[in-house]
Amino acid sequence: MQPWKTLARKIILNHGQFLTVESHAVELPNGRVISDWPWLVTPDFVNVAVVTDSGQFLCLRQTKYSIKGVSLAPVGGYLEPGEDPLVAAQRELLEETGYVAPDWISLGIYAVDGNRGAGRAHLFLARAAYRVAEPNADDLEEQEVLCLSCAEVETALAAGEFKVLPWSAVMALALLH
Amino acid sequence: MQPWKTLARKIILNHGQFLTVESHAVELPNGRVISDWPWLVTPDFVNVAVVTDSGQFLCLRQTKYSIKGVSLAPVGGYLEPGEDPLVAAQRELLEETGYVAPDWISLGIYAVDGNRGAGRAHLFLARAAYRVAEPNADDLEEQEVLCLSCAEVETALAAGEFKVLPWSAVMALALLH
Repeated sequence: MQPWKTLARKIILNHGQFLTVESHAVELPNGRVISDWPWLVTPDFVNVAVVTDSGQFLCLRQTKYSIKGVSLAPVGGYLEPGEDPLVAAQRELLEETGYVAPDWISLGIYAVDGNRGAGRAHLFLARAAYRVAEPNADDLEEQEVLCLSCAEVETALAAGEFKVLPWSAVMALALLH
Repeated sequence: MQPWKTLARKIILNHGQFLTVESHAVELPNGRVISDWPWLVTPDFVNVAVVTDSGQFLCLRQTKYSIKGVSLAPVGGYLEPGEDPLVAAQRELLEETGYVAPDWISLGIYAVDGNRGAGRAHLFLARAAYRVAEPNADDLEEQEVLCLSCAEVETALAAGEFKVLPWSAVMALALLH
């Protein structure tokens, strides 16, 4: 199985740091050329399933523009330009919850969209987390921090209460781990 | 917690059936207005974790433009315009593998991007699948069908071998189920 080749790329929409749309000319292994394949350039992000030193999952409850009502959520956010994913994950944990954790496990790096790119999700499990400060998130959304048992997370996940794709992914992968 | 209000929306890039970019004027609960919030309109899609009548996971091995090398993958694809998600899932299963299944379980509907939309992922578990035809996929990528044991899927998932976010999500949710 051969990869597609990128023959050329041009920007067709520049919307600042959060979204650039490119058009790629790509060549398939059979020689066919697609001259106008859309490609989304968006920042990589982290999501973190957090388990505290008392064995509970630390989650957020928040709104998001793309969903109806409130959702349960893991810690997460965009990488700053040039930022290491683990550093970003640790920064977001402290900002959003006031916790730090000594034990970090990568749950993988995933392309968000197999066809269009749209950045990569860096998923983590943080264990033995403990509180050192008040939350100090600068997110646009209102959010509250809450602790759930493993059984409560399993039930909420099965009920679709983590409503955004990377959120359900990181929680499911963490439970399997 | 109050949702953001959409005050206005306009199309800023129309790239056909697979991508439209809108700019939304949104009002936050505190009254702040963001005049140019980018929003991605892309088709909803399905991904299906498939278990055969002999208890094996039916997976694909394929390339994708956004990843390096090959990846393990579940069945999946875009909804046709107006198509019911379950019908799309059953269609993709037959097209990509030549299998049908009598037992379908929803694993949830998820916004792909909490901020920008980018369509919704409809995730399913299909059980007791059996073969009725040859695969007949019209996908652009080369792919091959393979059967894996539950333990093999767990190992591959933990090793990051399902390289696209909704693929790892549906397999992890299926294993938890």
